[in-house]
Amino acid sequence: MPDVNVIGVGMTPFGVLEEGITDLATQAAFEALEDSQTLEYPFDRIIVGSQNPDEFTGKGHLSTLLADRLGLVPAGATRVETGPSSGSSAFETGYAMVASGLAELVLVIGVEKMSAVKRGIASKILAKMMSYDNETRYGATPAALGAMVARRYMHDYGLTRDELSLVPVKAHRNGAKNPLAHFQKEVTVEKVSSSRIIADPLTLYDSCPTSDGAAAAVIASDSMVRQLGLKDQAIRVIGIGHGTDYHAVQHRLSLTSFYATIHAANLAFTMAGIEPENVDVCEIHDAFSILELVNMEDLGLADRGAAIDSIKNGTSEVGGAMPVNPSGGLKARGHPTGATGIAQIRDVVLQLRGLYPTSLQVDDPEIGLTHNIGGFGNNMLVTLLSKN
Amino acid sequence: MPDVNVIGVGMTPFGVLEEGITDLATQAAFEALEDSQTLEYPFDRIIVGSQNPDEFTGKGHLSTLLADRLGLVPAGATRVETGPSSGSSAFETGYAMVASGLAELVLVIGVEKMSAVKRGIASKILAKMMSYDNETRYGATPAALGAMVARRYMHDYGLTRDELSLVPVKAHRNGAKNPLAHFQKEVTVEKVSSSRIIADPLTLYDSCPTSDGAAAAVIASDSMVRQLGLKDQAIRVIGIGHGTDYHAVQHRLSLTSFYATIHAANLAFTMAGIEPENVDVCEIHDAFSILELVNMEDLGLADRGAAIDSIKNGTSEVGGAMPVNPSGGLKARGHPTGATGIAQIRDVVLQLRGLYPTSLQVDDPEIGLTHNIGGFGNNMLVTLLSKN
Repeated sequence: MPDVNVIGVGMTPFGVLEEGITDLATQAAFEALEDSQTLEYPFDRIIVGSQNPDEFTGKGHLSTLLADRLGLVPAGATRVETGPSSGSSAFETGYAMVASGLAELVLVIGVEKMSAVKRGIASKILAKMMSYDNETRYGATPAALGAMVARRYMHDYGLTRDELSLVPVKAHRNGAKNPLAHFQKEVTVEKVSSSRIIADPLTLYDSCPTSDGAAAAVIASDSMVRQLGLKDQAIRVIGIGHGTDYHAVQHRLSLTSFYATIHAANLAFTMAGIEPENVDVCEIHDAFSILELVNMEDLGLADRGAAIDSIKNGTSEVGGAMPVNPSGGLKARGHPTGATGIAQIRDVVLQLRGLYPTSLQVDDPEIGLTHNIGGFGNNMLVTLLSKN
Repeated sequence: MPDVNVIGVGMTPFGVLEEGITDLATQAAFEALEDSQTLEYPFDRIIVGSQNPDEFTGKGHLSTLLADRLGLVPAGATRVETGPSSGSSAFETGYAMVASGLAELVLVIGVEKMSAVKRGIASKILAKMMSYDNETRYGATPAALGAMVARRYMHDYGLTRDELSLVPVKAHRNGAKNPLAHFQKEVTVEKVSSSRIIADPLTLYDSCPTSDGAAAAVIASDSMVRQLGLKDQAIRVIGIGHGTDYHAVQHRLSLTSFYATIHAANLAFTMAGIEPENVDVCEIHDAFSILELVNMEDLGLADRGAAIDSIKNGTSEVGGAMPVNPSGGLKARGHPTGATGIAQIRDVVLQLRGLYPTSLQVDDPEIGLTHNIGGFGNNMLVTLLSKN
């Protein structure tokens, strides 16, 4: 396959923000354009990952709106949607545009403005991504499904409530040092375990927030990298995997493993010709604490039922052998759904370039992984990035 | 660039239909799977083009819902949205997935179910694709913008009201013979010219209907075509172009020409290494009658201000030298927005395979073109297909 590179990234703070959706997207995009020194260049495509801009903000046809706002007309502009993994799918599409030869230079933006509607409305908008026939009509919510996974995992592997709390504790510890994170304060095991129950056994602190925010990445062909003289800061995309599972959780093989992740990871690692143990840093989906453990195991980054050990023994801490979510993850960095996938790419790219905030910078990583979920395990995207 | 092929197509009737969005998509998809003899094959990706499924039908995360319904799990599933050109963008993305090497076999579905909401609601949903700041807040509608284009075109080129009516007359004449068309009856110049004014000078019969419907195409790599033994029915994708223009019509260079089409056509023809005069049949966007004329000129299929001559002298009729919209176009075939782009691909593919309903089959075409618009000229997609 042809080499495809990430040559620049940008990101807004995540949180409940004043800016509207176009301002957020523009802010992240210009940072990526400046970082890649492409402010003066004509782009071939703009790919926007956003889950529900029409319903959250009343803005339709967002991709061409942004092409105009960013001064990138007549670049072809496309919005990509796969629920909360829309950003990751936009990145996949941007990769395909360059690798196919249709484009040399592509701007990918992930953005979501979720706080413009009331919380109850936001939940109704998001609920449409679940199976109405099998889940929503019976009152199941994403948190309820997450709770089922947690309960089964605790039963199967003996995980305790306080052990599960170690996951948000790590997330908040990292988030506290991330100046763009939605939550920038630490929490304790006691605080997580005893906070308000959302869906038993999951508590408020097991759950990611509803955020606003945007992230952007500039993707370029090898010839464009040479033309721009950016070989030193270009990060290669060496693997992409995308898998789905049955829409309703009850139709799947397991509650404690997502087959779509296994499939996507297998595709990505095969394409890259590497193994999970080659990964030096990763940003993975942890919208609920239990998901970080399940996803690590499905990705081959931990043995089945043993992911919690990587927190207990420090392996997945920033200074450990395989740091997981140095950014704070969806839990602490925040989760503006369409933006998350590109934020993960941005975070791993900066890690590989050695530019992450000092206290969260991993020691000289060569290979990074991102993993994101759309729906409750409906579709999964895995991306592998390499410094060389 | 690697060869990418369309090996099967399918389409539901277009119109105000009883079926819901998943049933429509499934019906078109299975026809394409049967046509391409891939019912037993694992797919790598499913790309769904749909403008507003969440708002029109309450179904979110449509791509994974369809992957499940079609039995194509664990294929990666993505929805693509560019307003009413969503189907064309889905096809572009499907092309990129195969040409990039990420996929060998991709199912592309375009679908829209617009009649599930009341007409006033549908208009409000669709209006979000326009510029709020410059158009919608002042009461401008797509029809109003179309009327401005028509008025200016009539002023600049001397087109008369009755001449403009020849466009819908041709569309209905073709649609009357298309068993899947929304409108299957002929109309007269007098009927078009004197029907109810929608936005002066455009009348009801200058405008496409709001439709339900779905279309599907199976895209495959060369190696998959060989494996399936489908070399004889494979249609090659030889050109893809995608361009945008400023979001608000008032910011553009011209009212009687869409720069985004010129840009997209230039990309597609350059990629294919052919000229507009090599095109033997085309399906182009005619949501308002005037747009067929403007688009033909921007595509290089007619001289500036002279597109109406191709109807008057028969060139763009089914038996002419360069038939335009033998299907009846958006005007008569109907316009379920996300489905239209794939319906155009389906129609041209069947034309190139010589399988179109007899009275609408063009005489042995070698090269076909599709052209679609998202928003009011916001983005444009041009696709070139070849028999050999």
